[in-house]
Amino acid sequence: MAKLGFIGLGVMGGNMVARLLEKGHTVTGYNRTRSKAQWLIDKGMKFAESPKAVAAASDVTFTMVTNAAALAAVTDGPDGLLEGIGAGKFHIDMSTVSPEVSRALAAKVREKGADMIDAPVSGSVITLQQGKLSVMVGGRKESFEHLKPLLLDIGPKVTHVGDNGVALAMKIAVNLQLAVQMMAFCEGVLLAEKSGISREVAVDVMTHSAIASPMIQYRGPFVLQQPKEAWFDVNMMQKDMLLAMELGRKLNVPVPTTAVSNEFLTAARGMGWEKLDFAVMFDVLARMSGVTTGVQK
Amino acid sequence: MAKLGFIGLGVMGGNMVARLLEKGHTVTGYNRTRSKAQWLIDKGMKFAESPKAVAAASDVTFTMVTNAAALAAVTDGPDGLLEGIGAGKFHIDMSTVSPEVSRALAAKVREKGADMIDAPVSGSVITLQQGKLSVMVGGRKESFEHLKPLLLDIGPKVTHVGDNGVALAMKIAVNLQLAVQMMAFCEGVLLAEKSGISREVAVDVMTHSAIASPMIQYRGPFVLQQPKEAWFDVNMMQKDMLLAMELGRKLNVPVPTTAVSNEFLTAARGMGWEKLDFAVMFDVLARMSGVTTGVQK
Amino acid sequence: MAKLGFIGLGVMGGNMVARLLEKGHTVTGYNRTRSKAQWLIDKGMKFAESPKAVAAASDVTFTMVTNAAALAAVTDGPDGLLEGIGAGKFHIDMSTVSPEVSRALAAKVREKGADMIDAPVSGSVITLQQGKLSVMVGGRKESFEHLKPLLLDIGPKVTHVGDNGVALAMKIAVNLQLAVQMMAFCEGVLLAEKSGISREVAVDVMTHSAIASPMIQYRGPFVLQQPKEAWFDVNMMQKDMLLAMELGRKLNVPVPTTAVSNEFLTAARGMGWEKLDFAVMFDVLARMSGVTTGVQK
Amino acid sequence: MAKLGFIGLGVMGGNMVARLLEKGHTVTGYNRTRSKAQWLIDKGMKFAESPKAVAAASDVTFTMVTNAAALAAVTDGPDGLLEGIGAGKFHIDMSTVSPEVSRALAAKVREKGADMIDAPVSGSVITLQQGKLSVMVGGRKESFEHLKPLLLDIGPKVTHVGDNGVALAMKIAVNLQLAVQMMAFCEGVLLAEKSGISREVAVDVMTHSAIASPMIQYRGPFVLQQPKEAWFDVNMMQKDMLLAMELGRKLNVPVPTTAVSNEFLTAARGMGWEKLDFAVMFDVLARMSGVTTGVQK
Repeated sequence: MAKLGFIGLGVMGGNMVARLLEKGHTVTGYNRTRSKAQWLIDKGMKFAESPKAVAAASDVTFTMVTNAAALAAVTDGPDGLLEGIGAGKFHIDMSTVSPEVSRALAAKVREKGADMIDAPVSGSVITLQQGKLSVMVGGRKESFEHLKPLLLDIGPKVTHVGDNGVALAMKIAVNLQLAVQMMAFCEGVLLAEKSGISREVAVDVMTHSAIASPMIQYRGPFVLQQPKEAWFDVNMMQKDMLLAMELGRKLNVPVPTTAVSNEFLTAARGMGWEKLDFAVMFDVLARMSGVTTGVQK
Repeated sequence: MAKLGFIGLGVMGGNMVARLLEKGHTVTGYNRTRSKAQWLIDKGMKFAESPKAVAAASDVTFTMVTNAAALAAVTDGPDGLLEGIGAGKFHIDMSTVSPEVSRALAAKVREKGADMIDAPVSGSVITLQQGKLSVMVGGRKESFEHLKPLLLDIGPKVTHVGDNGVALAMKIAVNLQLAVQMMAFCEGVLLAEKSGISREVAVDVMTHSAIASPMIQYRGPFVLQQPKEAWFDVNMMQKDMLLAMELGRKLNVPVPTTAVSNEFLTAARGMGWEKLDFAVMFDVLARMSGVTTGVQK
Repeated sequence: MAKLGFIGLGVMGGNMVARLLEKGHTVTGYNRTRSKAQWLIDKGMKFAESPKAVAAASDVTFTMVTNAAALAAVTDGPDGLLEGIGAGKFHIDMSTVSPEVSRALAAKVREKGADMIDAPVSGSVITLQQGKLSVMVGGRKESFEHLKPLLLDIGPKVTHVGDNGVALAMKIAVNLQLAVQMMAFCEGVLLAEKSGISREVAVDVMTHSAIASPMIQYRGPFVLQQPKEAWFDVNMMQKDMLLAMELGRKLNVPVPTTAVSNEFLTAARGMGWEKLDFAVMFDVLARMSGVTTGVQK
Repeated sequence: MAKLGFIGLGVMGGNMVARLLEKGHTVTGYNRTRSKAQWLIDKGMKFAESPKAVAAASDVTFTMVTNAAALAAVTDGPDGLLEGIGAGKFHIDMSTVSPEVSRALAAKVREKGADMIDAPVSGSVITLQQGKLSVMVGGRKESFEHLKPLLLDIGPKVTHVGDNGVALAMKIAVNLQLAVQMMAFCEGVLLAEKSGISREVAVDVMTHSAIASPMIQYRGPFVLQQPKEAWFDVNMMQKDMLLAMELGRKLNVPVPTTAVSNEFLTAARGMGWEKLDFAVMFDVLARMSGVTTGVQK
């Protein structure tokens, strides 16, 4: 069993650590807010005082944080991961940042004699807990082969899709479709509803039809009732849309449905709903259609 | 077993007749081009010389044709279904037309003492042959109850969604999502491809991800290779998009992703690809991105 | 001076008749609601009891009505224009209908031995009263030459753009830009306003900038205050957008900004604002941005 | 007459310096490539070796560079403007950057005891040479009053629109409309052309219609023939669109026509046309419509 480090103990990261502990690994963790790590400390995780200390204590260090700024905050500076990592060690970044940011970080890690791969995941905590999470990997083939057994302790499907940053591009390319599919779903539900079909029946029929992706199956019912806690809120969804549009501009790929759907996420923020699950797109479109929903009060 | 009539023996209609014959029903059929009906005649179907003759010979007559004009062609005029139908008989229309057209026809059928329901289906011939086809029904509850056993001989899920025309609205509300999901899929595949992932790998990852609806699972690979024969060509897909936009305007529901995706179907026609499967949206976007595909030659 | 007929005495048509009377022409008019014609009768116009009677009494008959259905209502049937027109006479249609509808009507007029041109106008009543109205003409060159002096009594610029229906296509191609320019203007004003610039200053700067088309100059200030009476209401503007989209589909021209802007006209209807000037697009977008306007109450 | 400094001697900046010299001001200039400044040196401009030297020698220093990175390059570092500026001096930034970048720079300038205003201009070199350029100013009222006479030597209309950064927001809000108006114009021209009107006639009619903004009047004819040198190329136009979308997200203003039009600028880049005037949007849409243009070769 390897000595592992894990920086960023949010819902997803924390559950991964729990899983790695169960598999028998030694894990040293770090989180900005220590109190959120207590349940993991109770399970045997060591807590370190800085990202640098985590990397120094570990053969392989994971990072899983919110965005590029948060990633820089844990990798750079005197207490950063880059100060603790060294020859023969590995860094696995699971954050969703742009491929460019990821490649720039990989270059810095290599200057220290270590190597980095990007390994973003698609799926929710439930998927992780069920042991069904897919992991896409970008980076050197040899590093991938070396780290694969470790990643298999997280999820059953681990795929090498290309060089550094490429797994992130893949994830972004998948995630833009979440928002567009949801937007089209909202258009369909409102058409059905205004045609005289109850919203419940419309959602039921659609979640059993040819357009019922796994995402539509679990998120579709959110147009009837927002979940207690957002699974993926408007701000998070929009972050991924912006990464998709940024990638589109860099690579010269027009992304028209992404661009249009994104404007409805902006509208959701205009209405003050940025912390709700992004299924709240439905309430934006409903308001534009003169239909009242629960969210609108 | 009832005496059934079936007008419109295309791929979908013909296979339904075959299924009804297998179940032991007597079927009288009509098709504009008689030669296309030969395989069904060989299976025991009687061929009638006009829609009127079909309706006169049957307790329940199905129609399944391309659009409103084709429907009028088989229902109106001296040889039309309306001349052959009468008290106590039923008409089941499975064509995709607008809810308004459907309601107007139902009114005419009732003037003859008969009743009509709209029963559009979602799904392909393969779904039908596997016995998995869903049927949505709009119309009077009593007529629905009377005809339900018959419809169950076609598919296992038969749902009454509301009054006349409402099942059509439901179908249109589902089908707009086919084109939008496909458009977003194309955006994603091209982003992945230009990021350095092969088109095959991108399609493979996506068809196993959270956005993989049944439609994406079977149509996604068409961006690698158009099928020999279009499953649903650009013109047919655009017909449904126009019905969705027409419904949106009538009911005051904005349908922004539908509207934008529809423009790419128009572009496909601008490029001369209207007879290809609507997955050819990929080739439109690829051309705009400077990427060459097989379709472009 | 010719014997003229004029069918459709709304704001625009009525003012044209007033102008033609001033120029010394004899005018026989017809309007569904006779009371609206009283002011013209007071100026010397003869009132006829049917479109047929107008056409029978005149060498040249104008029609200027709301849409294709209204046009059919005054041309077809036993009291219609087609029953009164005959060899050597002319019909000038100024209604905004599709090029196809116009061409079909021209064919019927020719069967009677007469000829028809389409002559839609761009501009408002004020432009007409100032004697600055442009008239575009579609139809046979000889008929155009014959009728040109008469049209010059309406406005100073009369241009032959092509065969029957083509002047309508030209008008539709211009008018779609009204809605799109207005939509972009709304986006700009709201960006400025939320950046801390007063709405008044933003409108003032923009109506004196490189994007200040004549339309923006007169309609821009409507985002500060809707006019007492709509200059061009949401329903009328949307009618032209639908004609543009219909033309786009027929000719295989994608019209993406037209399609997207049209959805905001639909939203205006969803909010119950269909009778307001289409500048109310601003209030739709403002609501989506969390900004309150006077229209929203 | 004041001692002026000018950093960034491109087409626009260089012509401003020429104008300021004509008015009798002393000007010290700096440009990365010295050779481009020779014509101004010939007119009496002093050339300094660094931005720092310019600021040290001047009471008021202008900057006019391409983007935020270029601005940082001339303001920061040991040779930067900030090292040369001091108490009682002024900095006028005319670059198009985001309001945020501008405000951050203003804060740094104030730390040095000097003050900064943002003064972006709308219009082209021709407008400047004709003495018709409008200047919008963001910043402290007193600084504006102090610098106004100087700005009037550049153009006749100088308006204070608000605090620092606000003039930039105003400019961005205007400029997004350039691309959207052009996109709608392209849709209209292609509809007219495919209806049988020559492209030349369509452009002529439109540039004399209600949608003919100053921009459409001069850029409209570019769809017939690209100018020898781009007036505003695809990359520059897209830069402003991205600033608009960034502002929209920050302020929660949906900008749907901006977003959609921007995708056609991306497509122009996909086709290799990024250095052409952004009127090349026409050629993108023409290609999607199956229409051949000169640009496509």
